[in-house]
Order: sequence, then structure tokens, then C-alpha cells
Amino acid sequence: MSKPDTHIQAPPLRFEKRLSEILSDARTRSRAFSAPYSQLWEQIELMAARGKKLRPRLLIDAYTALGGVDERAAVDAACAMELLHMSLMIHDDLIDNDLIRRGEMNITGRFASEAMLRGISTRRSQRWGEASSILAGDLTLTMAHSLLAGLEIEQNRRRAMLDIFDDTVFESAAGEHYDMWLSMRLQDASIQDVLSMVEQKTAAYSFHAPLTLAATLAGGPSTLVKELGTIARGIGVIYQLRDDILGIFGNQLETGKSNLSDLREGKETLLIAHARSDASWESVAPLFGEESLSTADGNRLRRVIEESGALAFVESIISERRNYVCKLIHDANMPAAMRKQLTDLTVACNERVS
Amino acid sequence: MSKPDTHIQAPPLRFEKRLSEILSDARTRSRAFSAPYSQLWEQIELMAARGKKLRPRLLIDAYTALGGVDERAAVDAACAMELLHMSLMIHDDLIDNDLIRRGEMNITGRFASEAMLRGISTRRSQRWGEASSILAGDLTLTMAHSLLAGLEIEQNRRRAMLDIFDDTVFESAAGEHYDMWLSMRLQDASIQDVLSMVEQKTAAYSFHAPLTLAATLAGGPSTLVKELGTIARGIGVIYQLRDDILGIFGNQLETGKSNLSDLREGKETLLIAHARSDASWESVAPLFGEESLSTADGNRLRRVIEESGALAFVESIISERRNYVCKLIHDANMPAAMRKQLTDLTVACNERVS
Repeated sequence: MSKPDTHIQAPPLRFEKRLSEILSDARTRSRAFSAPYSQLWEQIELMAARGKKLRPRLLIDAYTALGGVDERAAVDAACAMELLHMSLMIHDDLIDNDLIRRGEMNITGRFASEAMLRGISTRRSQRWGEASSILAGDLTLTMAHSLLAGLEIEQNRRRAMLDIFDDTVFESAAGEHYDMWLSMRLQDASIQDVLSMVEQKTAAYSFHAPLTLAATLAGGPSTLVKELGTIARGIGVIYQLRDDILGIFGNQLETGKSNLSDLREGKETLLIAHARSDASWESVAPLFGEESLSTADGNRLRRVIEESGALAFVESIISERRNYVCKLIHDANMPAAMRKQLTDLTVACNERVS
Repeated sequence: MSKPDTHIQAPPLRFEKRLSEILSDARTRSRAFSAPYSQLWEQIELMAARGKKLRPRLLIDAYTALGGVDERAAVDAACAMELLHMSLMIHDDLIDNDLIRRGEMNITGRFASEAMLRGISTRRSQRWGEASSILAGDLTLTMAHSLLAGLEIEQNRRRAMLDIFDDTVFESAAGEHYDMWLSMRLQDASIQDVLSMVEQKTAAYSFHAPLTLAATLAGGPSTLVKELGTIARGIGVIYQLRDDILGIFGNQLETGKSNLSDLREGKETLLIAHARSDASWESVAPLFGEESLSTADGNRLRRVIEESGALAFVESIISERRNYVCKLIHDANMPAAMRKQLTDLTVACNERVS
């Protein structure tokens, strides 16, 4: 098996160029409006420059592996995926009340802190930051949709791609909503509840959409689109479960994110859902979701999650999914290049450390 | 001149039917997800049932007046306008921290209060309410775009309509952002600043978009689309300035909205921008934006706004715009039915009491 490379290869140059071009056009257009509106577009541009571009790469690589040759259309679809990702991240940060993403202040944080520096009250500054994020999310979402609607390809194919996009927004919103609902803990979340949420919130837009869009654009038969979709969902769940583990047990230097933040936020992951079923949880339950959780208490929580068997359980689910996905990849009728991409991706999502 | 009827005629039955159908389909699809997600769609449906449907009516009436015959396409475009309006209102309420709209609890209010009744903390309940609104705005925005992208009409025409839609979202976001910026009062807003903001925030999506979409769909020449656009912006400004006056001086029984809320919120309208330039403002300035403003202090503020000449000033701007718009309508080359619609609309926006 070749070395997994999903996270290390740079995204295609043409994609980066096109995304910059689209956003810089928007910034130019924004100059006809207020100065802060132009700053908002500058922030959107900065954010776009920082992303890992996992989704665009998935889409472009899959399109190429499936024999697609309309690079321009693939690049535009890839830009749409990145813009959708940005929109969801911006609104997700807002929902989570986060001001920081990957070690940098996000849009809410930047606009709010700038207003505070100018002497505006904390409350108003925060509203200004939040308003900026609400609008930035709406704008990037609109732009994503617009790119797909503008694809100069055969009408039925474009329509099918737009349907995938709409279904993706529908499902991602369902997942985001469900995540918040589960985190309110009005009822105990079952393992299946959490897995469904993960599939809706992350797998749908991060894996299912890029791969099924690529296959549709490449004119793949509907059976292939469907098979790829199922595989994509499986990989997406592996990706997220690994993310949950990294959020608590990861190396902060590698993840770029405090390994206390998920614990402080009280993020209801599969790890937590399982740990709760163990008697040892009771002793640390009050610490979970504690906004000012100390490093020592973080270590206590981490120990209980590990010793309760939750870590091993989630690892076993990941293993199970990986075997299932590998079998699907093996059995599916697809070009060798596509099979290789999916295998590498599965390994990368499982073995990633950041 | 015939009696203006913009606010009293019911929207076409076929439009109401189509909008219900679209939203009820979405609710049915949502059943595959969590119960709260279905409730979110129910709330969106309820909200859609309550609207005045000003924008859809504008679009459909203009399309008919311009000789358009593809009722199905016009109805879908009208639904897109209503969904865009809903999306902007939902996110605007969020930005303004409002829980009530037109005497009813909005989505944030409903979800937050339900969670509180179930014993969830105020802070978490509020986040849940806000998350529900963020998602509802994203979903209705996506649906609006999707309806336009799905129009079964000639490709260039659909492309032109999508461009209008994208420009509208871009400009409305600019206006919303600018409105908040001006309300932070880091600099004194000039009359022109406020008028630009009003044009961007309200006139663009409420008047410019429905009329230019109608003309584009009807295949009107580009000169007509442009003329209608200019007229629409003029009418939109009249509409909003009248709204500002009603917000402070209107009859609450007719407007369905407290005439203290704009004063409590510190809404920076043209009235206020003008009143600030009068010496009498200083005596009441601390009351403006006071969240717990009393009825008596509201009356004091209202008196200063009137006696400073601000009310008369805004009325004079409305008059001026009305004359300008009427002249444009008179001079433009358009069918008599279109001219009549625009004239009625101008009068209705000026004379409305709710």
C-alpha cells in the first residue's frame, strides 16, 4: 500500500488560482460599498488561503481518476466545495461561540476585537463580530451555489450536481442541529444516534459531496455514484471519529488546537457517549463541559475516558468501518486510479495526527 | 389614480400553493433526520404562512403586466424571493437579538423557550435558539437559489436571473453590515450614508430584485430592466423611510409592532441622523438606545424628533423621491399595466400605515 498523502500534497495550482480570483473579484466589487464590508471580504480571502483544501482535492483527484477532462468545470466545482466548507465552518464557529480557529482569530473574533479597540462596548462589539460572521457564511454559501449553477456543462448533469449540493446543505444542517440537540442531553444519546449525527454533520459535505459531485461531473453511471457515496460516508465517519480522538488525546503541536477545548466545550462525541455508560464517569462528570477546566482536571477526564474502555471502543468502531470501507472499495467496479485514491484516503483519515 | 392595493390583495393562489408544497416537501424529507430538525421545518412553514408576500406579488404582477405567460416559472421565481426574504429576516433578527417578529415569537424565541421549559440553562437554550435560526436562514437561502437554478427556461435568461439573485445577496449583506456599522456611531452618518444603506439593505432585495427578475423572465429589453431597477430602488427607499417613521410614530395596533422598539434598539434611521444635528437632541441623547426606555421617555424622544424638524425633513425626502420616481415611471417606455402597477405601488409605499 502506498504512503497516504491526503494531507501533504498541495492542492492543484489551478484550483488555488481560481479560488483567489473569485474572492478577489468579490473584494473588488465590495469596494462600491462600505469600508468594513471590504474588510469582511478580506477576511474571507484570508480564511480561504489558510484551509487544508481536503474537499477540493478529493473532488479533483476523483474526477481525474474517473477519466474526467473538463478541468475548468472540476476546478469550479472544487471551489464550490471549499466555499461551502467555509460557510459551514463560519456558522459552526458562531453556533459554538468560538473566536479562534486553528490558532487564528476567526471573523467574529477579528471584527469584535477591532471594535473593542475602537472603544465600542463589549456587547456591541460582539454583536458586530457575530453579524459579520452570519453575513460571511451567507455570502460564501451563495457563492458556492452560484459556481455550480454557472457550470457550463450539459444541463441534466448540472441539475444533478445542484441536487447533490442542495441535499448536502439539507443534511449538514440536520447534522449540526442534531449535534446541538444531543449536546443538551435531554436524553441519553445511543451509539447509533452519535454515528448518525457524525454522518450527517461531517461525512455528507466533506466526503459524500466531493466524491459524488466528481463522479456526476465525470458522467459516471448512477451505480458508481451511489457506491462512491456509500464509501464516502464510511470514510467520513472514520475521519470524524479520529478527529474526536485527536481532540482529546492528540498532540496540540500537531493538531494546532488545545486538547482541552472539546472537554471544556462538553462536546458530545462517541467517546463521551461510551464513557458515560461506565461507572467511573460519575466521579468526573461535573468536570466535563466546565469552561475553566484545568490541565490537571483535563488529565483526570482523559484518564477516565481511556480506562472506561471508551477509547478502545471508538478505535474498534474505526477498525470495523475501515474494514467495511476497504471491502466496498475492493468490490466496487471502478478504475484502478479511483480505487487507489480511496484506499489512500481511508488510510490517511485513520492514521492522521493533525 | 386608482386606489393603491399593494397590501390588501391576496397573493395569487398558485403562488401560495407552490410555496406550501415546497416547504411541506422539505418537512417530509426532514423526517429522515432528528425530531427537532422536523420542528425547525415546521417553524419555517409557519413563518412562510404568515408573511405579507409583498415581494412575490410584485414579481408576479410585474411579470404579468409585461406580458409574461410562463406562470410556472414566475411562481417559482416568486417563491425564491419569499424564501430569500425569510432568510434575510431570520438572520436579521439574529443580528438584532430579536425574539419576536410581528407579535409572534420567531425561530430563536421558540426553540430557546422550549428548551428552557425542558430545564435547559438560559445560556444553552439561547444558543440552541440561535443555532436553529442560523440554520433556518441558510436553508431558506439555499432553497431560494435552488428554485432559480432549476427554472426550466432558456439558459441565458436563467443565468441572468441567477446573476441578479447573487448581486442581490451581495448588496443586501453589504447593507446589513453597513447598518450595524453606522449604528456603532464611530463616525457621524451623513444623510447620504443612511440613504445608501437603506438602498442596499432594503430596496435591493425587496424591490429591485423582484422587478428586475420579472422583467428578465419576461424577456424585457435590457433598457427596460435597467429603468425598472432604478424605479424599484426609488420606491424601496420610500418604503423604508415610511417604515422608519411608522416604527416611531406609527399606530401599534396597525403596525403590529411596539413603537418603542426602534428607540430602545437605537436604530440609526434617517430620522435620527437628522435629529442628532439639532441642539435639542443632547437633552434626550442618553435615552436613545436605552433598553428599558419607558413610555414617558419614549414620548420625550418622539417629541424631540418631531420638533427638531427631523420628521418634516424625512417627509420632504419621501416627497422628493416620490416625485422623482413618478417622473421616471411617466417617462419610461413600458406597457400601461406596468406603469399602473408602479404608480399604485409608489402611492401604497408612501401612504401605508402598517
